[in-house]
Amino acid sequence: MSNVWGRNIKLSIFGESHGPAVGLVFGGLEAGMVIDRDRIRFEMARRAPGRDDISTPRAESDGWEVLSGVLDGRTTGAPLCVVIRNENVRSGDYTPHLLRPGHADLTALIKYGEHADHRGGGHFSGRLTAPLVFAGAIAKQVLERRGIKIGARIAQIYDVIDAPIDTDEIFAISRKPFPVADDAAGERMRQAILAAKADGDSLGGVIECAAAGVPAGWGDPFFDSLESAMSSLIFSIPAVKGIEFGDGFGLASMRGSEANDPLFMREAVAPGETYAERAAKVGVTTNRNGGINGGISNGNPITLRVAIKPTPTIGREQTTVDLERGETVTARFGGRHDPCIVPRAVPVVEAALALCLLDHATACSERS
Amino acid sequence: MSNVWGRNIKLSIFGESHGPAVGLVFGGLEAGMVIDRDRIRFEMARRAPGRDDISTPRAESDGWEVLSGVLDGRTTGAPLCVVIRNENVRSGDYTPHLLRPGHADLTALIKYGEHADHRGGGHFSGRLTAPLVFAGAIAKQVLERRGIKIGARIAQIYDVIDAPIDTDEIFAISRKPFPVADDAAGERMRQAILAAKADGDSLGGVIECAAAGVPAGWGDPFFDSLESAMSSLIFSIPAVKGIEFGDGFGLASMRGSEANDPLFMREAVAPGETYAERAAKVGVTTNRNGGINGGISNGNPITLRVAIKPTPTIGREQTTVDLERGETVTARFGGRHDPCIVPRAVPVVEAALALCLLDHATACSERS
Amino acid sequence: MSNVWGRNIKLSIFGESHGPAVGLVFGGLEAGMVIDRDRIRFEMARRAPGRDDISTPRAESDGWEVLSGVLDGRTTGAPLCVVIRNENVRSGDYTPHLLRPGHADLTALIKYGEHADHRGGGHFSGRLTAPLVFAGAIAKQVLERRGIKIGARIAQIYDVIDAPIDTDEIFAISRKPFPVADDAAGERMRQAILAAKADGDSLGGVIECAAAGVPAGWGDPFFDSLESAMSSLIFSIPAVKGIEFGDGFGLASMRGSEANDPLFMREAVAPGETYAERAAKVGVTTNRNGGINGGISNGNPITLRVAIKPTPTIGREQTTVDLERGETVTARFGGRHDPCIVPRAVPVVEAALALCLLDHATACSERS
Amino acid sequence: MSNVWGRNIKLSIFGESHGPAVGLVFGGLEAGMVIDRDRIRFEMARRAPGRDDISTPRAESDGWEVLSGVLDGRTTGAPLCVVIRNENVRSGDYTPHLLRPGHADLTALIKYGEHADHRGGGHFSGRLTAPLVFAGAIAKQVLERRGIKIGARIAQIYDVIDAPIDTDEIFAISRKPFPVADDAAGERMRQAILAAKADGDSLGGVIECAAAGVPAGWGDPFFDSLESAMSSLIFSIPAVKGIEFGDGFGLASMRGSEANDPLFMREAVAPGETYAERAAKVGVTTNRNGGINGGISNGNPITLRVAIKPTPTIGREQTTVDLERGETVTARFGGRHDPCIVPRAVPVVEAALALCLLDHATACSERS
Repeated sequence: MSNVWGRNIKLSIFGESHGPAVGLVFGGLEAGMVIDRDRIRFEMARRAPGRDDISTPRAESDGWEVLSGVLDGRTTGAPLCVVIRNENVRSGDYTPHLLRPGHADLTALIKYGEHADHRGGGHFSGRLTAPLVFAGAIAKQVLERRGIKIGARIAQIYDVIDAPIDTDEIFAISRKPFPVADDAAGERMRQAILAAKADGDSLGGVIECAAAGVPAGWGDPFFDSLESAMSSLIFSIPAVKGIEFGDGFGLASMRGSEANDPLFMREAVAPGETYAERAAKVGVTTNRNGGINGGISNGNPITLRVAIKPTPTIGREQTTVDLERGETVTARFGGRHDPCIVPRAVPVVEAALALCLLDHATACSERS
Repeated sequence: MSNVWGRNIKLSIFGESHGPAVGLVFGGLEAGMVIDRDRIRFEMARRAPGRDDISTPRAESDGWEVLSGVLDGRTTGAPLCVVIRNENVRSGDYTPHLLRPGHADLTALIKYGEHADHRGGGHFSGRLTAPLVFAGAIAKQVLERRGIKIGARIAQIYDVIDAPIDTDEIFAISRKPFPVADDAAGERMRQAILAAKADGDSLGGVIECAAAGVPAGWGDPFFDSLESAMSSLIFSIPAVKGIEFGDGFGLASMRGSEANDPLFMREAVAPGETYAERAAKVGVTTNRNGGINGGISNGNPITLRVAIKPTPTIGREQTTVDLERGETVTARFGGRHDPCIVPRAVPVVEAALALCLLDHATACSERS
Repeated sequence: MSNVWGRNIKLSIFGESHGPAVGLVFGGLEAGMVIDRDRIRFEMARRAPGRDDISTPRAESDGWEVLSGVLDGRTTGAPLCVVIRNENVRSGDYTPHLLRPGHADLTALIKYGEHADHRGGGHFSGRLTAPLVFAGAIAKQVLERRGIKIGARIAQIYDVIDAPIDTDEIFAISRKPFPVADDAAGERMRQAILAAKADGDSLGGVIECAAAGVPAGWGDPFFDSLESAMSSLIFSIPAVKGIEFGDGFGLASMRGSEANDPLFMREAVAPGETYAERAAKVGVTTNRNGGINGGISNGNPITLRVAIKPTPTIGREQTTVDLERGETVTARFGGRHDPCIVPRAVPVVEAALALCLLDHATACSERS
Repeated sequence: MSNVWGRNIKLSIFGESHGPAVGLVFGGLEAGMVIDRDRIRFEMARRAPGRDDISTPRAESDGWEVLSGVLDGRTTGAPLCVVIRNENVRSGDYTPHLLRPGHADLTALIKYGEHADHRGGGHFSGRLTAPLVFAGAIAKQVLERRGIKIGARIAQIYDVIDAPIDTDEIFAISRKPFPVADDAAGERMRQAILAAKADGDSLGGVIECAAAGVPAGWGDPFFDSLESAMSSLIFSIPAVKGIEFGDGFGLASMRGSEANDPLFMREAVAPGETYAERAAKVGVTTNRNGGINGGISNGNPITLRVAIKPTPTIGREQTTVDLERGETVTARFGGRHDPCIVPRAVPVVEAALALCLLDHATACSERS
């Protein structure tokens, strides 16, 4: 069980879907930073359930209490503890003897035994992404002051694909209530979700995410490539099953002459400069490598795409096991759930990317 | 710079493409294990360059010297240090003022300055995968004694796709000199590589990898999912730009009713068993989730696919910068290189998966 | 700022002396463990302030709320979050412009700047040892089920030294309200504390701690010796300035022939046993090395002694700086404090030792 | 087995006393640093055996080979691998069935079984401090360029105590062949060692170590106090059994009014300065806390003392076990060894302190 993440920041999360609360302890934040509560509220609302007909009817106000690390509205340098109470808990919906296919019910039972908290997925629940988004909202504030911005959009839901965009459009799209470039495609996505919901079914999709303003030189060979750090955190998000950077799997069917991003001198050089000084003036004309070469940022936007599987909880009849009877059975599962988690996962992927970049940006606290 | 990997095992690698040697220090191995030198030789040969017309003509015997951790042919429990000397070094091929597009030349220069070892990619070179394969060969020996086997195949090179297979076929295919299911497809891949080589160009591809026999229950929420651990290590391999588990990106265009792997009782249950005991008798009829639910192994084979970009070094003319002149120029790059790294990367991906599983399998050494 | 500790367990602590709460998030606990609330209450009471005339008059009920990780009185395997509210907060006692000598006031100000929470030492306060004792109480429960018991006593306060004991007496002494072997010496210690209190002064001391039942074979060369792990955690406790294992500094003035613990066969050997099997039957006749050789437990009790400096807060006039006036001044400091922290530190040292042993005892959760 | 140390630097060590070599892999060094080979040679010579009549007659030239990480005499930013061959190996001296009291022979056998390398202590040997001193010599070079200097002296051998000194004298004393302040005391120490040697016995002692120039603000609450970090690494050195910072155990018998280091304004303040700016101008008049408050450096010299136990290998008859016969026996042990390891341990303690400070000084490599 590792509930702690980060090399320079230390993020612990805790809680279960149907316990008293979820929350986080966030160590390694710089002292003196003003906490923008509106910004946190905005990000939490993007992830919050119960907003419309395509998300779960479980409504949570996601109000929070800060227990430590803040004094007079500013961080103190001590760890920040935030508690987000669970309000709308209906444990009666869950039946521990009927394992839900595609969920962690089986693996949690094998790993933790009878005493795992099975209610609503327990600690495996998507509810745990609420503290992640909270922490990400703080991370974004720090990064924005350093000129780094992060955005994401829905690139695909089921068979509906959003229009292609330039990377710098993603930051505005990201703030839309339904973050797609082509609203007509967005409407088709919503219809697909409603159709799946009507069938008691669910849909998967793809989220595209980008970060602009990341300085060249972040990431470390051999084992701490930026791709390693980012993929590791993003695969913690429930339902993520794939990730690709830049053109990703598309690079597999390219030739090197297509895949290599050509270099050019962005600025005039001066006599006597070192190669390293001149290297800081080099740009790339395409970004097929997603802003990363040799595991290290090259100064271009970092781009990545994440595959989200369909919500495992569906209302349709499924083949599964009844542990009480010890038999293979067919069953329908109730419980409130999202027919498609992709829209609510957009701010979660952004939060993970923000946390990963903050971890790189954070000076080990010994140095000033 | 993090050259160390692992939570329970501790693998350090070192070396540069054109320095005296590459090598590894491998801590956390159990004591008393017989080192199978033939097995190591077999795995090293699978990765070795210079074997045929589709790989780099740089020949390396990849002979090695064990400096510590072994006594009378068995591990002692102390860290194993292995040195693999570089023999066929021709540094004269490299021109530090001309940055190679798609390589780490630019980012290494920005990160480490003038004193980085640029020769042949230095520490960023694919040559560093030799110690990884060495360590992986040892990891496979430990895992095989525990009933875990690992295999990989070339699933795609450029536009040629290998035939679909059942997961359990992959272990035999893996040992073929050119590891594909359909040898005719394999021949088309080779022709595509030779055609690219003739054009002074290179090709990318996809590697599929699987592990059978992994017990249910490995992996940890929230931040140490198996996907997190595996993707992190696999993205350390140079040229990897994407990874997906199970049906991965394919799940994005599925409904939940297709994506959920149905459960069934594999064995009869006995009266009085706990749910946890019965859970150990549950199987899945499909494996779209790649053997992992909620970040934890479910006992089914773990399956994953890795996107490999085309070798960045190509002989064709490219647009790049000349740091000496401070200008954008066109240039051709010599140096020996593989027109397609995918075949030699197959044992490297296997090695990374083996190391990741060994790290999970390894008891913290305090307990017996 | 690292507020997280442990390799196999993951303990995060948070809070400030005068904030809303202190608390902990405790990951890596096994599932299904019954939480003994009386045991926790007993340990918390040992550390609690305000019990008598030799501790601070700041009374805290140290009531707590469990927010996660427990269901029906048992651990679920998910991280345990516990919040301990601060009740008796009187921030008005503190004057940030007057630095208290011997405290972290100066270093916290340099490290975190104006926005550090200076009130009562903030995150540096001894109040943070309350979550440590809570976590230690749980750790002790796990260890006791494995046959490991932990005890500590006051070995010295100022110039009063407790009587020498056999190690196995320490476990009973540990439970006494004033844990010394010789109650007459204890009474002299109390008188010394009261005398110092009357002078507006404070006293230091030495705590002796032992763990019996630790299996041989815990600890790892080269960098994870048991002494390394234990000292690292124990030096996190405020006011600790020295640690020694076994005869510690006393070994410096011995000859090898005195310092080496003689070995003997505890049991008869059987024909055909390996050396390793016979090694399990070897005992030592003395314990000058404190149960540890080569950084690894040898099966004997682990013994250590910890030097605690006098409470830095004293009522007597001291030379210090007034940052408002920018001058060296003399000042007296109010605020409630302990004239000698040693008695309340006894359960804290035990807790640290328990946590360290639990971290070694805890199976990496992947294995069963 | 953890053979890797460091948060920002990554030091791996390997080797056994009687294997082919010992060595290190040192990641996280800045690029472009000139390696001063004379300085390394000087430090290695201070630790080297066989120099005179009070150390082991096992002579080792301690020549080394750099396999990676250096190009044209400067670090490249890639990990440095150094191999130090073992030359003077006489394994015949060792008898695995006779356990040496006070050594790791018993615990290594229990932990690693029959296959541990018992020859000369194997991986537990003091020979492993050679790579530590090598790494420390590099660390000192980096630190000295930042104005940090490190020194140590022999404070005590057996019952002979060196004269008291001011901390700033230690740096010159440190470079003496026999590093004591009072050469007459040094001569008595040498005589005591020779007397013990003549008896086939050995002696322990105390090493005092200091670092000057460490900036205020290094170290992190709650779990990464400077004392935690330093003690953890120093207890990795074989034979260390105690450590104290500042007045350490002496503080236990003080009153707070004696133990608190008084503060004063070192410089005049200017109007409008913040408290934090003024804090940088505060000094202490004594250094009883050893330069550390609240786990954080206060700008004063860091001072610590380390207890070294007598060399366990002695020629006198001892009670031990014969595992072959399965009996308690008396035995004398041959093998070459130091009658007192303290003089040779002086540079090792310095090296550990230097590495610990370098780890704090090292910027996480992502930031420039």
